[in-house]
Amino acid sequence: MRLANVDGRLSLVKGADTMVDVHTASAGLFDPDVADAFQRWDELVEWAGSLDLAALPGEPVEPARLGNPAPQPRQVFAIGLNYVEHAAESKLDVPDSPTVFTKFASSLTGPNGDVVLPEGDVDWEVELVAVIGRYADNVAEEQAWSHVAGLTVGQDLSERRLQLSGPAPQFSLGKSHRGFGPIGPVLVTPDEFPDKDDLELGCSINGEQVQKGRTSAMVFPVPALIARLSAVTPLLPGDVIFTGTPSGVGLGRTPQRFLSAGDELVSYITGIGEMRQRMVPNPAKAGA
Amino acid sequence: MRLANVDGRLSLVKGADTMVDVHTASAGLFDPDVADAFQRWDELVEWAGSLDLAALPGEPVEPARLGNPAPQPRQVFAIGLNYVEHAAESKLDVPDSPTVFTKFASSLTGPNGDVVLPEGDVDWEVELVAVIGRYADNVAEEQAWSHVAGLTVGQDLSERRLQLSGPAPQFSLGKSHRGFGPIGPVLVTPDEFPDKDDLELGCSINGEQVQKGRTSAMVFPVPALIARLSAVTPLLPGDVIFTGTPSGVGLGRTPQRFLSAGDELVSYITGIGEMRQRMVPNPAKAGA
Repeated sequence: MRLANVDGRLSLVKGADTMVDVHTASAGLFDPDVADAFQRWDELVEWAGSLDLAALPGEPVEPARLGNPAPQPRQVFAIGLNYVEHAAESKLDVPDSPTVFTKFASSLTGPNGDVVLPEGDVDWEVELVAVIGRYADNVAEEQAWSHVAGLTVGQDLSERRLQLSGPAPQFSLGKSHRGFGPIGPVLVTPDEFPDKDDLELGCSINGEQVQKGRTSAMVFPVPALIARLSAVTPLLPGDVIFTGTPSGVGLGRTPQRFLSAGDELVSYITGIGEMRQRMVPNPAKAGA
Repeated sequence: MRLANVDGRLSLVKGADTMVDVHTASAGLFDPDVADAFQRWDELVEWAGSLDLAALPGEPVEPARLGNPAPQPRQVFAIGLNYVEHAAESKLDVPDSPTVFTKFASSLTGPNGDVVLPEGDVDWEVELVAVIGRYADNVAEEQAWSHVAGLTVGQDLSERRLQLSGPAPQFSLGKSHRGFGPIGPVLVTPDEFPDKDDLELGCSINGEQVQKGRTSAMVFPVPALIARLSAVTPLLPGDVIFTGTPSGVGLGRTPQRFLSAGDELVSYITGIGEMRQRMVPNPAKAGA
C-alpha cells in the first residue's frame, strides 16, 4: 500500500500521480484526516487489502498538492551518526548506541516547496523516515518491523552554526527551523519493498548528486532503533523516526559547501519517490 | 484561574482540593478532554472569568486522581544550563543562547506516582514548566507572556549515564525514560502570581531539601525563551517548555548522589503546589 496526503486528505496512490480519496472510497468508514490513519492502522490495512484499487476511479494529483504523509506525530525521533562514513566526515566516533535528538514538529512539512534560508550555514541530509503504525513498548528487534506503518523520504535540513554551538550542543533547535523537515512524497508499507532493509537513498543540488547511500549501511537499522527507543519510552502511532544520513553532507566537504538561495534540492529513495525543495532568501535579511 | 486534570477531565480548582468539572459547569460548552482546552484557550479564559466559582458545587479530589494538566503537547521544549549555579555544578559554561533538547512526550505523566528506576544514575531536576495557550510565531519578549496559558511544576528526571554518553551527547533520550516527566499538580494562569517572574522552586528527598532557587535567577527567563524558540519555529497551543533547573542536583555533589528505590521526591513551586514521586525498583532487574 502507498498512501499520500492530498490537500490534507488521506489518499491511496493508484498510479504514479493518480490518487483515490480514502474517505470517499470507504464510504466514510475512515476520516479524511491523514493523522487519524495511524490511530486505526490495522483496520486501514485490512480494508485496503480487500479493495480492488484498479477498479476505482482515480484523480490526477499535481506534486504541489501533496502534504506530509505523517503530519501529527506526538514524537519525532531523529538519529545522528548512523552511517559510518557520515560519522567520519563529521569527525565524530561511531556511537555505541543511537545518538537521539528531535526535530520539533512545527518544522515538519510536505515533500515539495520553498525553504526560507535562515541566517547561518544550511546543510542537506537525506534520510529514510519510518512512521510508527502500532504502539511499541519494549519491542524486540525481531518484532520491530510489525510496528512500522510505512517508510518515506525525509530531509533533515540542518543549520550547522546553531546545531554545533554552545557548551553542550543539542542538535535539535538547529535542525528545527521552519520548513527544515520535509517528508514524503508518499508513505509506503514495508511489504511493498523487495528488501526493506536495503534501499538506495540520495540527493542532488541543481542536478549534481551530493549524497548516495544504502540503508543497509546503517549502524543501527530500523529494527535496532525501534528496539532501543521503545526500551526507554513507548513509541506511539503516528510517531516519526528520522533514521540518519549517509555521507556527502556539505559540512564534511573541503571546502565546506552550504545551500544558497535559488538552489534546488531533490531527495529520493528508490521505491518511494522524490521530494523537491527550492531555497529562497529570507525577506527579513534581504534589506540588510 | 487554576486548572487541573482530574481523571482525564478538565477541572477548575475551587479550593485546595476541591474541583469543578468544566464540561459539566459549562453545560457542555467545553469538551471534558484536557488537551482541548489549549485549542480554545481564549474562549475558556473568557468563560471562566464570567463564572462565580464560589457559587458552584465542588468535588473533593484526592491527589492520586490528578493527571498531567498539559497532556498532549505537539512539542516539548526543555532548556539546559539555564541557572548560573547549575551550569557551574555541571562544569559547563553558561550558554550565549538557550541550550534546547526535548523530553519525548511518552515520558510525561501526572504529578503523583511511582517512577520505576531504570539502570543507571537517576537524578532530580525541579523546573518551572510553561504551557503555551496561543500560537507563537516570531514573538517579541514584550509579548511573550500573552502566549502562555499557565505555569506548573515539572521534574526533569535524568539518567546521567545515558544523558552524557556517546560522541555527541544529546540529553533527550536519557531524560525520557517512562515516568521521567511528571507535571502538575495544577496549571496556574500568569495573572494569579504577585510576580510571575520570581517564583520559589525546590525539591526534597525523604524530607531533606536538595534544591531551592528562584525563577528570577534564570539566565533566559520565560519571555526570552519564547522569543528565541518562536524565532526558529512556531510554538503551538498545548506545547510545554521545561525551563531548566537551579543548582543542587545529584550529579554536581561531592560525592555524587542519585535516587534509590524507596526514595520519595517532593517538588514544589510556591503559588502552584507540590508533586510527589516515589522511586521503585525495576522488576526486570530485581532478579539480577
